[in-house]
Amino acid sequence: MTIRAAIVGPTSYTGLVLIEWLLRHPSIDITYLASQRETLPNIADDHPRLRGRCELQCQPIDAAAIAQAADVVFTCLPHVVAMEYVPALLDEDLKVIDLSADYRLADAAAYERVYGRPHADAGNLKHAVYGLPELFAADIAEAQLVANPGCYPTAATLGIAPLLQRSLVQPTGIVINAASGVTGAGRSPKPNLHFPEVNEGYVAYAPGVHRHQPEIEQTLTRVKGEAVSTLFVPHLLPVNQGILETIYLDPKDDDVSEEELFDAFDDAYGDQPFVRVRRDLPNLKYVVNTNYCDVSVRLVNAGSPQDDSDDAPGKKVVVFAAEDNMIKGASGQAIQNMNLMFGLDMATGLA
Amino acid sequence: MTIRAAIVGPTSYTGLVLIEWLLRHPSIDITYLASQRETLPNIADDHPRLRGRCELQCQPIDAAAIAQAADVVFTCLPHVVAMEYVPALLDEDLKVIDLSADYRLADAAAYERVYGRPHADAGNLKHAVYGLPELFAADIAEAQLVANPGCYPTAATLGIAPLLQRSLVQPTGIVINAASGVTGAGRSPKPNLHFPEVNEGYVAYAPGVHRHQPEIEQTLTRVKGEAVSTLFVPHLLPVNQGILETIYLDPKDDDVSEEELFDAFDDAYGDQPFVRVRRDLPNLKYVVNTNYCDVSVRLVNAGSPQDDSDDAPGKKVVVFAAEDNMIKGASGQAIQNMNLMFGLDMATGLA
Amino acid sequence: MTIRAAIVGPTSYTGLVLIEWLLRHPSIDITYLASQRETLPNIADDHPRLRGRCELQCQPIDAAAIAQAADVVFTCLPHVVAMEYVPALLDEDLKVIDLSADYRLADAAAYERVYGRPHADAGNLKHAVYGLPELFAADIAEAQLVANPGCYPTAATLGIAPLLQRSLVQPTGIVINAASGVTGAGRSPKPNLHFPEVNEGYVAYAPGVHRHQPEIEQTLTRVKGEAVSTLFVPHLLPVNQGILETIYLDPKDDDVSEEELFDAFDDAYGDQPFVRVRRDLPNLKYVVNTNYCDVSVRLVNAGSPQDDSDDAPGKKVVVFAAEDNMIKGASGQAIQNMNLMFGLDMATGLA
Amino acid sequence: MTIRAAIVGPTSYTGLVLIEWLLRHPSIDITYLASQRETLPNIADDHPRLRGRCELQCQPIDAAAIAQAADVVFTCLPHVVAMEYVPALLDEDLKVIDLSADYRLADAAAYERVYGRPHADAGNLKHAVYGLPELFAADIAEAQLVANPGCYPTAATLGIAPLLQRSLVQPTGIVINAASGVTGAGRSPKPNLHFPEVNEGYVAYAPGVHRHQPEIEQTLTRVKGEAVSTLFVPHLLPVNQGILETIYLDPKDDDVSEEELFDAFDDAYGDQPFVRVRRDLPNLKYVVNTNYCDVSVRLVNAGSPQDDSDDAPGKKVVVFAAEDNMIKGASGQAIQNMNLMFGLDMATGLA
Repeated sequence: MTIRAAIVGPTSYTGLVLIEWLLRHPSIDITYLASQRETLPNIADDHPRLRGRCELQCQPIDAAAIAQAADVVFTCLPHVVAMEYVPALLDEDLKVIDLSADYRLADAAAYERVYGRPHADAGNLKHAVYGLPELFAADIAEAQLVANPGCYPTAATLGIAPLLQRSLVQPTGIVINAASGVTGAGRSPKPNLHFPEVNEGYVAYAPGVHRHQPEIEQTLTRVKGEAVSTLFVPHLLPVNQGILETIYLDPKDDDVSEEELFDAFDDAYGDQPFVRVRRDLPNLKYVVNTNYCDVSVRLVNAGSPQDDSDDAPGKKVVVFAAEDNMIKGASGQAIQNMNLMFGLDMATGLA
Repeated sequence: MTIRAAIVGPTSYTGLVLIEWLLRHPSIDITYLASQRETLPNIADDHPRLRGRCELQCQPIDAAAIAQAADVVFTCLPHVVAMEYVPALLDEDLKVIDLSADYRLADAAAYERVYGRPHADAGNLKHAVYGLPELFAADIAEAQLVANPGCYPTAATLGIAPLLQRSLVQPTGIVINAASGVTGAGRSPKPNLHFPEVNEGYVAYAPGVHRHQPEIEQTLTRVKGEAVSTLFVPHLLPVNQGILETIYLDPKDDDVSEEELFDAFDDAYGDQPFVRVRRDLPNLKYVVNTNYCDVSVRLVNAGSPQDDSDDAPGKKVVVFAAEDNMIKGASGQAIQNMNLMFGLDMATGLA
Repeated sequence: MTIRAAIVGPTSYTGLVLIEWLLRHPSIDITYLASQRETLPNIADDHPRLRGRCELQCQPIDAAAIAQAADVVFTCLPHVVAMEYVPALLDEDLKVIDLSADYRLADAAAYERVYGRPHADAGNLKHAVYGLPELFAADIAEAQLVANPGCYPTAATLGIAPLLQRSLVQPTGIVINAASGVTGAGRSPKPNLHFPEVNEGYVAYAPGVHRHQPEIEQTLTRVKGEAVSTLFVPHLLPVNQGILETIYLDPKDDDVSEEELFDAFDDAYGDQPFVRVRRDLPNLKYVVNTNYCDVSVRLVNAGSPQDDSDDAPGKKVVVFAAEDNMIKGASGQAIQNMNLMFGLDMATGLA
Repeated sequence: MTIRAAIVGPTSYTGLVLIEWLLRHPSIDITYLASQRETLPNIADDHPRLRGRCELQCQPIDAAAIAQAADVVFTCLPHVVAMEYVPALLDEDLKVIDLSADYRLADAAAYERVYGRPHADAGNLKHAVYGLPELFAADIAEAQLVANPGCYPTAATLGIAPLLQRSLVQPTGIVINAASGVTGAGRSPKPNLHFPEVNEGYVAYAPGVHRHQPEIEQTLTRVKGEAVSTLFVPHLLPVNQGILETIYLDPKDDDVSEEELFDAFDDAYGDQPFVRVRRDLPNLKYVVNTNYCDVSVRLVNAGSPQDDSDDAPGKKVVVFAAEDNMIKGASGQAIQNMNLMFGLDMATGLA
């Protein structure tokens, strides 16, 4: 079987990575690249890495033409923009994997609160499936529209969900200290992303008000069956790719052991091809340019023992979760979802 | 007045930075460089940056000879090693500023618990003054032996102390998520510090068990007058210099305002030349190659509002503190201490 | 057909990359990893990226056992060491692709002059084929022993050979100014490769005396049929991967046009899957993590026109060649050679 | 004596560095910052590093007001723009140090050829002195208008001039392979300077057509007294600061010795405070954040000896010159010039 794939918004970084990985996929033909731009480039002029590998001419975003050419379409557009185009694509019976944020929050009111404008496609929002395969594989397999998760939410959710499901940690007071490479901020030049401003720098942004925070909470609340709240504080790392999240949780019970925590991860991910439960500490180095999310956990004292009696002030659970923001956090996960939607092995083309 | 300065251990990174800044100091002559090495180098061969600027031949660590040549000595030796040499230097009536960890923990038993061996100079330990000028300037001015603070503890303490002193935050449950450039790990090549292993990587280390955690707690407990406990989790940043700490605290009272938090900082540091209270978020870029520690604070919800009623799950105080680990976190602070010990303006030579 | 592959020296950087690419190759099983180390690691402990992907236990370097398990063996050992093991592997009728320098120089006397010790396997040296597929594909297809080219020589040779073959440039006076990422220097920590020494630095090394210079000259002399001499000056770039060479040549005739230069490249590489003739300037970014070598060329004045009459002091040809030192410069090229040796399409598994 | 200094264009990177270094200068008060911007910022809002150090409000570029406030003015404007403002500043009897390219080329026709438009201030062009203190100190001391050299020309000229003056190398066929950190490209965000495009990349630009090539040739021709031609090929390094130039020259005579080459440098720079003749190879690391230019030289074979008879194909002279593009290549050199213009020791404030 050869699946014909279209990409809308291929001139983005996620578009580039998607193309590079789809070129390696044994069952895919990239047949159509669609762009919003006024002047439509040959994709190899826009992404010089693709010279000789994929030299398709970008076309307008024409749902009917895409439906002629493709079985599945990946939308790599900015949020707000994506929901302008998705309805027509769905109407053409295309399977759609949307890498924007537009179909991630299930509730249109929540969308408006977080993204500052009304949702333009509330009808389809109801049918969108949140594309985190480790949690929702069955639904993804049946979906026509998959909302590919945000980069930060993927690592956060995979790092927290099993501990909540086993009731090993409290559902509130969770602190997610996250750091991401700069591709996560997109391809448009901006003063704060100018090379000399980022290189040899490190800074937090949007503490407690980043749009990925409600997305994380939505999924964890769904998984846990009760309200889960998190404080999410992202930082900009002077690297190209990769996310590491250091997550602080309160144990339900100070008598929990580190092995119980690892058991929860091992049970959740033992059969999952792309989550690795590590005994050592996850490092960007181990996951960049792969579709893996690495997780590990430590049970630590919440302060130093003041003497040999080890009379420490309680315990904290610290989870570490690492991934490539462009692969497992975006385009690789989109392919993993596509594999599920077409009945392929989830790992096809993602080695 | 010209102060004659000796440096013991000048071949370290902190030694290099100390020399470069002392060369600019209007009242200092570097008169003696003392090294443990078997083959004693010319310092400009060991640090090629110093060619033409400081070409002293290193000498053995001979306390009497140092006392002939110098008024003050900076010891840039590894912990455990420093306390072998400091007693003889003090016996020679030299003023000593020790950049190692050996005189930072006031209690010899705590030292043994943290550093794994008995303190070899408990007598002088009693007289050592912890060299954080913003908190202990008067004691420093009178001291013969100053224990220069650790790099991480400097930023952490400056970021937390004013909030504790004003009772705006809880003294327990404090989480310090820290990230440091690689010079903080010293100049010896190691597999995990090999360029390709660090570059484009990011990883935590020693979560909850780093030796700076008890040092932070000691100072904060002293400042607060009651036990303060922190969980300290450092990370290795792929940059040369700089520390950023993101510190999570629980407000004493959810009704606290962000302005009250800033007021605490403004009052504490309004007269301090090297702590800047910023309204924007501290960035490594703003402090590297300076003696500044930048601090800022945000009062945030500990989870996302679920609807417009803003019924959020409590509040968190998030402090950001940034410095250059080599300057304010080590050699610059050492000069600041020296200025105090010799009755100079604290900022002399540190512009 | 499944080819069974062994790797000797898998704990190197080239070993890691080789494993990662072979895991994606549709016709390969990695069956044996052989190491010189006293304590033989599981490869996933040594290269944490491989956890869950390749967790083979390293074995001793036992030629008979390797021959039981494998059809082809890649030797990723240091020079001098490789030639100790290769003879036994060949005796077992294994196909051998040697990534060291030991079989690259065809003349044993030249080897001794360059590497400072007598060649220990001069008998096999005669049968080794230099594994640059764009020039020697037919010989490679028949070879039992392939000497995989050095990283710098691959880019240099591909960038110069077509111009020499067409007699568009002089065979002497060639200057190769090269810059490589740090993985090219291997995985062993050294003072000059310690992160803070490399990061934000840039320096030349071994100007005119690097061992790759005679290797480049040997191949170009063979291609040209007369003596070709080059001056090779490498530099260490503060990046992980990638080589860019800027090559200065004298045109045979100042009347040559830039299009003639491009024509030479287009004709040489039009059918080659892994050399891209670019009109824009090659950049590391376009080739890292690919098996491509990108080349381009400019015909420029050797000085500025002093007035509008364009009375310039002659012309220079400037060639730019870029590749990933680990892929086209090492492990990817080794797989390309393997494909040829087993009758596969040269590009199999290298997308 | 306190000199009052104004800076026109302080929101540039060179402006920032100039302010930071002038703040340390013992004889300088920064009294006036003048900007072209419509909305005039407080300089500490524009350069957050300056918070608490220099918080001047930017003013319009008003020559009369500047003359009231200052004795000397540094113009850090783009080329073409600078020459609009310089005449009025000179008319006010201010000493002017222009960091743009507008007064570097002595010949107005050459300016037009290189910069693509007629020179707007040819009258003052005649009186401008090229501000390379190692060559033109006496003229600089007398000048009212100093044209501060370009970053690349500073290193190139210092690396070549002594060899030409001694007639040790040919005046033609010189190849300058240069690499610069990204601050050299200015502070405006651009697609090719976006962090992920530069980081882990390396690329040449403007080979043979960069505007610094005629500037280099002009100075060398003046020094040599006959036409000197160079081919200049710059590259963009993924670092913030620093330039390294690797310069290939033909010896006048193959019998020259490396010591004669070093003697030429030693004699030229023995009394110069900011040029260091190194025996080891210059590295960005040794010069960044200093006002030094480091030079070294090697005499090498222009190809490999084919046998022990060392019958090599001629010799090449390879010069290495390194500097910080922002300091010796711009703002530090500007201060060095200012010191000369006011009769101070050339090194004042530049330690």
